[in-house]
Amino acid sequence: MKLRESKLTLVGAGPGDVDLITLKGIKAIQSADYILYDALVNVELLEYMKSTATKIYVGKRSSKHTYSQSEINEMIVLFAGDSNHVVRLKGGDPYIFGRGYEEKLHAEKHGMQVEIIPGISSATSVPAIAGVPVTMRGVSQSFWVLTATTKTGELSDDIGLASRSSATIIVLMGVKKLPEIVGLFRRSGKGDTPVLIIQNGSLPNEKKAYGTVNSIISEAYRTKIGAPSIIVIGEVAKYGKLTSEANKKVKELTLNEVIHA
Amino acid sequence: MKLRESKLTLVGAGPGDVDLITLKGIKAIQSADYILYDALVNVELLEYMKSTATKIYVGKRSSKHTYSQSEINEMIVLFAGDSNHVVRLKGGDPYIFGRGYEEKLHAEKHGMQVEIIPGISSATSVPAIAGVPVTMRGVSQSFWVLTATTKTGELSDDIGLASRSSATIIVLMGVKKLPEIVGLFRRSGKGDTPVLIIQNGSLPNEKKAYGTVNSIISEAYRTKIGAPSIIVIGEVAKYGKLTSEANKKVKELTLNEVIHA
Repeated sequence: MKLRESKLTLVGAGPGDVDLITLKGIKAIQSADYILYDALVNVELLEYMKSTATKIYVGKRSSKHTYSQSEINEMIVLFAGDSNHVVRLKGGDPYIFGRGYEEKLHAEKHGMQVEIIPGISSATSVPAIAGVPVTMRGVSQSFWVLTATTKTGELSDDIGLASRSSATIIVLMGVKKLPEIVGLFRRSGKGDTPVLIIQNGSLPNEKKAYGTVNSIISEAYRTKIGAPSIIVIGEVAKYGKLTSEANKKVKELTLNEVIHA
Repeated sequence: MKLRESKLTLVGAGPGDVDLITLKGIKAIQSADYILYDALVNVELLEYMKSTATKIYVGKRSSKHTYSQSEINEMIVLFAGDSNHVVRLKGGDPYIFGRGYEEKLHAEKHGMQVEIIPGISSATSVPAIAGVPVTMRGVSQSFWVLTATTKTGELSDDIGLASRSSATIIVLMGVKKLPEIVGLFRRSGKGDTPVLIIQNGSLPNEKKAYGTVNSIISEAYRTKIGAPSIIVIGEVAKYGKLTSEANKKVKELTLNEVIHA
């Protein structure tokens, strides 16, 4: 009987910017024999692959699933064989709404060694790059990350609880459910709470919509914001607006200084 | 009047493992003239600095503050001068309980350009490396990250709300308040909910204590677990226990396979 030497490494690719992957993640890509990658992964990262390695696009973006989760699980074991290193490259972090743990369990059941390399989650990094700290001393002491819908497509019960908490609320995959989400926060007396929606965060085509719980629907409509987006609800969201204004001000001042230099 | 060309880059150093920094973070360290770094930063990262750059240790670990926040803010502007690149290297992520936003505001007030480079937060990566996914389809649909105490040293009100939610609860800087935290969860009828405490996560001296809300105090005492630690409360915490057992099982099976090869 042959000793199983195959390995699965779950690698978080980060929010989109090709340099927001960890050094450990790059090293894993460099040593991979097979790479299975998602729709939200920046394909420039595949340039780190060795020339003999094989890449497999396994899709998954909203409802356009290219392969089912169980097909992906089977592929991991199939490509692993007796001694291959399979890298599963996933957008953001593998364990934050990524179903990475299911892939880990499946691989371990088949005797594979499994390593996890965390990634920069879009949940916290996309707000940060857009000028919003998810925590801020004296403003927000905690943050709660949720998806809008459960696996059955219903609005998550957690959203209702979240609307009554004092945490910064970060909703992933929630733009389609925006009216229902806003309704819950309004019923919790949070009509004036700032809201920032960020589409394609960290990428050159980043787009933002800013308003309050009461006004964000019309702002989202006006800016034609769509998926993939992140919704931040809480007092810290106002810094997303401030930042754009502060940046403009800095630029004007600098220009003024140049003129009078 | 001279044009201000100085820049502050806030860089997240990750949870401790020297390879869990982003490539973008490494590039910022390489271009820095001055680096101000915290106690929780892996000092091996300073090897990326250019030979002409200066490093300044600004401390901050629990109550042993080497410099106050306002002293750090002043140092950033002082070292920046007219054209220097100051890197503020912070453990984990700069905007997750890091007071990074205060440093950003201070630098911008003095006309500096500011860039934020997110880091791998220990809040989600330390559980992941210890075998715990913060979300898991059908088990936990959201996660809530909190610190145990407010800026006045009181137990945070959010902990009480968190004990009544269905989210995975991740408490940073909470070991000293463990009895109070456990009390709140017990009063919310969560005595049997799994709890995992991880000290020095992602590092070779990582230590874990595993139990339920009812049993974790005695487990923490038995394992002599201390700061810096992360507390995970929720059904997913049980995977931290499963992983250790599964790893042992895999090793035994492999040995068995070798013997019968």
